[in-house]
Amino acid sequence: MIIVMEENAPDSAIERVIRRVEAAGLRTHLSKGIERTIIGCIGDERIISQIPFAAMPFVEKVLPVLSPFKIASRAFHPDDSVVEVGGVRIGGGALTLMAGPCAVEDAESLLASAKGVREAGAQILRGGAFKPRTSPYDFQGLGEEGLKLLSETGKALGMPTITEVRTLAHVPVAEKYADILQVGARNMQNFDLLREVGRTRKPVMLKRGMANTAHELLMAAEYILAEGNSAVMLCERGIRTFETSTRFTLDVSAIPVVKQSSHLPVIVDPSHAAGKASLVSALARAGVAAGADGVIVEVHASPENALCDGQQALTPAEFAGLAAELKAIHGILREKHGTPGGARAAERSAEARW
Amino acid sequence: MIIVMEENAPDSAIERVIRRVEAAGLRTHLSKGIERTIIGCIGDERIISQIPFAAMPFVEKVLPVLSPFKIASRAFHPDDSVVEVGGVRIGGGALTLMAGPCAVEDAESLLASAKGVREAGAQILRGGAFKPRTSPYDFQGLGEEGLKLLSETGKALGMPTITEVRTLAHVPVAEKYADILQVGARNMQNFDLLREVGRTRKPVMLKRGMANTAHELLMAAEYILAEGNSAVMLCERGIRTFETSTRFTLDVSAIPVVKQSSHLPVIVDPSHAAGKASLVSALARAGVAAGADGVIVEVHASPENALCDGQQALTPAEFAGLAAELKAIHGILREKHGTPGGARAAERSAEARW
Amino acid sequence: MIIVMEENAPDSAIERVIRRVEAAGLRTHLSKGIERTIIGCIGDERIISQIPFAAMPFVEKVLPVLSPFKIASRAFHPDDSVVEVGGVRIGGGALTLMAGPCAVEDAESLLASAKGVREAGAQILRGGAFKPRTSPYDFQGLGEEGLKLLSETGKALGMPTITEVRTLAHVPVAEKYADILQVGARNMQNFDLLREVGRTRKPVMLKRGMANTAHELLMAAEYILAEGNSAVMLCERGIRTFETSTRFTLDVSAIPVVKQSSHLPVIVDPSHAAGKASLVSALARAGVAAGADGVIVEVHASPENALCDGQQALTPAEFAGLAAELKAIHGILREKHGTPGGARAAERSAEARW
Amino acid sequence: MIIVMEENAPDSAIERVIRRVEAAGLRTHLSKGIERTIIGCIGDERIISQIPFAAMPFVEKVLPVLSPFKIASRAFHPDDSVVEVGGVRIGGGALTLMAGPCAVEDAESLLASAKGVREAGAQILRGGAFKPRTSPYDFQGLGEEGLKLLSETGKALGMPTITEVRTLAHVPVAEKYADILQVGARNMQNFDLLREVGRTRKPVMLKRGMANTAHELLMAAEYILAEGNSAVMLCERGIRTFETSTRFTLDVSAIPVVKQSSHLPVIVDPSHAAGKASLVSALARAGVAAGADGVIVEVHASPENALCDGQQALTPAEFAGLAAELKAIHGILREKHGTPGGARAAERSAEARW
Repeated sequence: MIIVMEENAPDSAIERVIRRVEAAGLRTHLSKGIERTIIGCIGDERIISQIPFAAMPFVEKVLPVLSPFKIASRAFHPDDSVVEVGGVRIGGGALTLMAGPCAVEDAESLLASAKGVREAGAQILRGGAFKPRTSPYDFQGLGEEGLKLLSETGKALGMPTITEVRTLAHVPVAEKYADILQVGARNMQNFDLLREVGRTRKPVMLKRGMANTAHELLMAAEYILAEGNSAVMLCERGIRTFETSTRFTLDVSAIPVVKQSSHLPVIVDPSHAAGKASLVSALARAGVAAGADGVIVEVHASPENALCDGQQALTPAEFAGLAAELKAIHGILREKHGTPGGARAAERSAEARW
Repeated sequence: MIIVMEENAPDSAIERVIRRVEAAGLRTHLSKGIERTIIGCIGDERIISQIPFAAMPFVEKVLPVLSPFKIASRAFHPDDSVVEVGGVRIGGGALTLMAGPCAVEDAESLLASAKGVREAGAQILRGGAFKPRTSPYDFQGLGEEGLKLLSETGKALGMPTITEVRTLAHVPVAEKYADILQVGARNMQNFDLLREVGRTRKPVMLKRGMANTAHELLMAAEYILAEGNSAVMLCERGIRTFETSTRFTLDVSAIPVVKQSSHLPVIVDPSHAAGKASLVSALARAGVAAGADGVIVEVHASPENALCDGQQALTPAEFAGLAAELKAIHGILREKHGTPGGARAAERSAEARW
Repeated sequence: MIIVMEENAPDSAIERVIRRVEAAGLRTHLSKGIERTIIGCIGDERIISQIPFAAMPFVEKVLPVLSPFKIASRAFHPDDSVVEVGGVRIGGGALTLMAGPCAVEDAESLLASAKGVREAGAQILRGGAFKPRTSPYDFQGLGEEGLKLLSETGKALGMPTITEVRTLAHVPVAEKYADILQVGARNMQNFDLLREVGRTRKPVMLKRGMANTAHELLMAAEYILAEGNSAVMLCERGIRTFETSTRFTLDVSAIPVVKQSSHLPVIVDPSHAAGKASLVSALARAGVAAGADGVIVEVHASPENALCDGQQALTPAEFAGLAAELKAIHGILREKHGTPGGARAAERSAEARW
Repeated sequence: MIIVMEENAPDSAIERVIRRVEAAGLRTHLSKGIERTIIGCIGDERIISQIPFAAMPFVEKVLPVLSPFKIASRAFHPDDSVVEVGGVRIGGGALTLMAGPCAVEDAESLLASAKGVREAGAQILRGGAFKPRTSPYDFQGLGEEGLKLLSETGKALGMPTITEVRTLAHVPVAEKYADILQVGARNMQNFDLLREVGRTRKPVMLKRGMANTAHELLMAAEYILAEGNSAVMLCERGIRTFETSTRFTLDVSAIPVVKQSSHLPVIVDPSHAAGKASLVSALARAGVAAGADGVIVEVHASPENALCDGQQALTPAEFAGLAAELKAIHGILREKHGTPGGARAAERSAEARW
């Protein structure tokens, strides 16, 4: 951590900051410039990250040097993490396709959608039972009954399943029926829920909040990892911006940004970002081309009869065409870089630019 | 709801949309323009708000006409709502000052801060026991022990108290000790928590999410109101933008926007928006000048020793100066408009502009 | 255009709006719903787009039905436009690679960079002579001298050139030396400059403003097209958001959004979006995978000695690797869709979803 | 400037950076921490601000310590600047009201609006002759003819005038007729125009770009100041965010942020931020309460007949009511702080918090 003092800071103010840093067990390193005095703090800056130096007299600003996350960091785990679930690998050079309807509606419609996506090459079946809806008057999902249907359909077709948990009470229920627990964008900073899924031994997919930076996503992942659950994957699903022609703005840059800072797999969700079916394929291709380890796509056997988000669902036939493209694009990256993690290394190699 | 068809939509596609609207019990009104055919839907558009018309062939776009919230709407309740708690009025022309430390730390420090803010004119004491923290390694609050201290301090000084609940389990505990339950920005769309506080009979202060529009805030309030709890107040605390010199961008426009659409009181939180003490007073004044019914300000007897957010806390002396200014500004608005609700009426009166 | 009246609008207010629409030569279509009266305007809504209906008493809101741009619209020109310059095709299924240094610095360094990018497969040479710099104390470009060097280098290597014009006086100078005129993001709504480049007969590349929507980009293109210059291409280069790990947020969704609404070619600029070299390749791949007709990439023979934006420049060797990937990804899209325009048609075909 | 090296940076890479800093004439100060090596640069960091250290091998990040603007900085000029024009003072504790129509339309309508605002207390008359319009098909202003009308009206009523210049050619024309030249939001980074108005001896009002930070606004002001024109005032007029209920989001925080960093006066424009008349008064009050030195408000004698932005224009009667409120609010701030500059000093006094 570097503490920059105001131009006219008296020595007494500088000494006061130094004493406080040293009282916490770190060493300091003073650098008197022409216009500013700068105090470098040497030692584990996480120890002093909670001290409000900015509230001390004559402190102009505080510049952190290290990222505040540890276990999620690539420095902690240089190789790509791989999450395995029911024989499907996520991360480490694989391309994983997750697909299915927004919500589980009934057995028949779910089976139709699930068969469609499996034939198209999807390995993991998605389906919501606890739906977060903007309006209290909208369809809220089937609850445990929906999870049962999802589980039965997944088993019948040999597909692991992923479903969203919205509150603590959903966790044990979803744990019983589903293979991957999803924490949605609106709950990315629901710290109690993060801890709760961290205490299960199910893989977790954590979606980026619509107003959160890529680094805040890693801090939220840290909550799950710190509870001992290392099977965490992240999901980029769009952030809120002024652009109104899409529901959210898919931030494809977040994919390489996260992969440079972290070893966790990154999945891209083009459906919620786009908010309309005609844009989904282009965004899914962009995500895989940017280095994502997989996609999660809303597919419905009959979008216009969907109870939830039909306007953004692909048909199984559309998804089949997309899946073929994604595999081909992934093949090009793999051919060149070995694995996306390898790609990362190749693309930022410092030595190569010397 | 208005449904705009694509330019070359065939009659069969138009008829298909019409049949679907009419099957739901609404009437339609067809308008064939030169470039587009438009289908107006007559009746309660909330009934058809869940039908994914945009997923139907040749539908170009769907334009809602009405706001999706009901109970929160000013059409539903034309006069300003007033929330009363322990003899303090919030809304309806009053100016309510809430202040106190970010977190309850210990009895002595809480009492020092509380005495300071009471002397300065604050009516309601704030203090967090369950802190939402970006990092799992930061101070997380004292929990129930903190609530007890808050309650005792409030009683000793004759001040009702407000505290944040972060998850369902916190609700009964906070209900036992505090007078107002706060739902934080990160939980604005935690729909389960909204329902849970809606089932209590304690007043609720709902903070706007950092990526949510003013209308989404009203939709979230609707979740609480729909459970039967009508003592809801809203809080503007800044949204996330590209500007980095403040922690968030206080959206003062949201105050009149919400007051035009809704009858609920609006409180402004300048502390979290600013993120630094030297900006808090200017933002608090701006909020009251824009028509807010009150402020909630972080005040600490010794900011540089605060365990949480010390850099944005005012001292009691600074708050006393601010409180005097806020009362004077509120007096000016009151003199002219009677009440902020009256202000609203005066400022948008259609007839006056004829 | 649809005009929604307030709930309690008297007949006299409704008639007043109708008279004003009809006085402008359009017909109206009245629809009295249960809660609102709606006035549909039939005829060319561009005629009445300037009338401030929202300032009339009891008007609640005004909903436009049509896009305000004409010549830029795909309805006006259903096939993809193709821009041809010096034997290079841009749009219509081709993939065009533009590359070169941020600024022209001197003959030797420019030649080194230019040779590098030509060998890697770039067809068009970029280089700035009039640099828009945030600080008045930064290097501002070589001016006409820089354009001469760019032109000579381009001719020597058989590459058409592209350069930015920043003000009206630059246009005739750049027209003399360069093959494509670029209007930068900060000038997207410099309407005088748009008209001026519209009066030349050189192709123009118009970059999206960092705070502008995709539809505003098309409106700005309309200014150029309306002057009679139809050789316009658009460029997505990132928008401003709260995310700080990149300089701007590349909005890949804008590529299919623009292609659905318009026939103009779309180029992606990953360098300015990323702001750092290690992210450029991932963003370039994402852009092409999303359907872009080409890329414009900053490449410098020695990035750490660049006078401008060295931190985001690729080396020629890095660009060669990227170019190979981009061609392969483009090949996959072309194989499936014929052309990106065809891709568009395939991806949003309404009939296919019936 | 502080340069942070990557964790595993070899000594050779560190030495390479040091040599480059020292070659530019600055001294370095090395600090080897446990996880990172940090290089402090001692001397005028503006000299090395253009060196792309981030492009050098093993450099992780570059942290500037000083603001890049000089003449605009409060360190350069500790007291508030005051701009005087035709006997009206702007800044230094005064409250200046500027008002008038969006565009000059004709003599009669201008006179009606001007008389209205003068009676209400406005000191400066605004009116556009060169209008920047999103659509090429909209009314573009009367040009020089409009400036003549503005000048005659201003002289007849004893009001100095302000008008926007959009391109270099407008500057000498506007200089001839108007008293203050305005550079609009879309031109905040039109660096050629900034230099041109910097070469005149007329006061300039520079509006903040809709995607620009407060510090970028000060950098843009620096372009004008660096040409020798010190009569510069800044204008906050809203930034682009995801919120759609206003045209832009007025960033009131920018007012104290700019005043802490700079000595230049700050004017607030509530009309363009709001985009609708019913919100303008609340935003104007908020701006003055946050410490603005004045407001610029669109007022039209008959908003619904305005040729430009009628929906956001106040009537003269509405403006009269607003002006009274603004003066009263300003009086409260003045009473307490002496001047807004004094307010600044009082609000951030470090000593007071010791």
